[in-house]
Amino acid sequence: MKTDRIITVQDAAAFAESLADAAAPIALRYFRTPLTITTKVDMSPVTEADQEIETFIRQRIRDHFPEHGLLGEEHGREAGSTDLTWVIDPIDGTKSFITGMPTFGTLIALLEGETPVLGVIDHPVLRERWVGKASSASLYNGQPCRTRACTRLADAVLYATTPDIFEGQARVAFERVSSSARLRRFGGDCYAYALLASGFVDAVIEAQLKPYDYMALVPVIEGAGGVVTDWAGKRLTLESDGRVIAAGTASLHREILDRLNS
Amino acid sequence: MKTDRIITVQDAAAFAESLADAAAPIALRYFRTPLTITTKVDMSPVTEADQEIETFIRQRIRDHFPEHGLLGEEHGREAGSTDLTWVIDPIDGTKSFITGMPTFGTLIALLEGETPVLGVIDHPVLRERWVGKASSASLYNGQPCRTRACTRLADAVLYATTPDIFEGQARVAFERVSSSARLRRFGGDCYAYALLASGFVDAVIEAQLKPYDYMALVPVIEGAGGVVTDWAGKRLTLESDGRVIAAGTASLHREILDRLNS
Repeated sequence: MKTDRIITVQDAAAFAESLADAAAPIALRYFRTPLTITTKVDMSPVTEADQEIETFIRQRIRDHFPEHGLLGEEHGREAGSTDLTWVIDPIDGTKSFITGMPTFGTLIALLEGETPVLGVIDHPVLRERWVGKASSASLYNGQPCRTRACTRLADAVLYATTPDIFEGQARVAFERVSSSARLRRFGGDCYAYALLASGFVDAVIEAQLKPYDYMALVPVIEGAGGVVTDWAGKRLTLESDGRVIAAGTASLHREILDRLNS
Repeated sequence: MKTDRIITVQDAAAFAESLADAAAPIALRYFRTPLTITTKVDMSPVTEADQEIETFIRQRIRDHFPEHGLLGEEHGREAGSTDLTWVIDPIDGTKSFITGMPTFGTLIALLEGETPVLGVIDHPVLRERWVGKASSASLYNGQPCRTRACTRLADAVLYATTPDIFEGQARVAFERVSSSARLRRFGGDCYAYALLASGFVDAVIEAQLKPYDYMALVPVIEGAGGVVTDWAGKRLTLESDGRVIAAGTASLHREILDRLNS
């Protein structure tokens, strides 16, 4: 990375894990308690837990790396003086969180330009964490994890958080593809991608995601041997349209891509 | 209960909890390991974990209560010499289990005639257990739990495991009702009903369930203040058609029932 301070991906990963360690007790303090739920402009819910976690993480990053940029779900974008940007989703799966479902997670990514070089998927209640770093094997609770060798949709376990994220032609395409999978399941939020990185799920197809929803997933999935792109097969950037395909193998990814667009 | 041996619901509950305690390590031993998955006649999957847990639980029941009947998902029905029948689903949510999703559970119910007088919902990975007994408050990990006071569908969080369980008119009815909820979510299997009993979810609507899927839920939900019936508003029996509505309050249940059938 080019930066006016020396920071290796390794250092950044240790720092991101310390952020996740410190944020987890905040999530646990609010989980399954009566929450004030506010509906945002995009109709998604937000709670004081989302707000407090993001405020906390942003402050820690500002204290340690004042020259880095910030992008978070709840408090928007702050430019930095380097090409490094932290992308944060304090609670990915707020809808799970507010229904007492422990599959929600905290997502922390570090981008170099538009490329995510580090991703942390942390599940505070489940005490499960996936860490992905550019050019090294992804880790599940400190141990290397790998996607599994499923190469055909007919053999694949496919997840999406809900069919409600697909509208119009996207819904038609999703139904066509997912009905050809061996098994399609709903629910999971970021947890479905994490299970993919550990070889229990073969593909995830979603839409309407934001950069803070997908940036942390990329290094984890790629470092586990998987492929994740938009529905055109392009790398995910801050400007992607929010449609995401993740697959455990390149050939499964190619088949899903072809079928989605056929 | 009328039986040739004296057994109180309290004794039965302690016994059922000991079954869940002893079955949990079997589930954990198989969870997230390579499994042989067999597809049954009804197209649902079964693994050696389901088989081993049910065999184990049935044997324990036979040893302790040879006069009781047995009904389990994997090994069918055995009549007893009393009106007491144990109903067992060794892994409710086998599709979750085989995808590494920890929301699956072991369900154990005791029926007096057709009436479930005891239900245990045990989540081995999550270490969460709900116990319901006729005429007493349901327990979550040993502490009383209650449904919450949501009385209108427009305010309700509604779950279903997947839209794929609804066919034809049932799908149309489900879409009509669930789209009027404040929030609809998919996934969860028996965990969604358990979250309802603890007041985090307001309603669950499902179809294609079998007695071993729903019998254990009934005492838990009712003992937490909720209502659970079939789509005609009738009590669930061994002969029910597998369509289930659970709600945290009687008025929410009534509204869902009316809308499903309108």
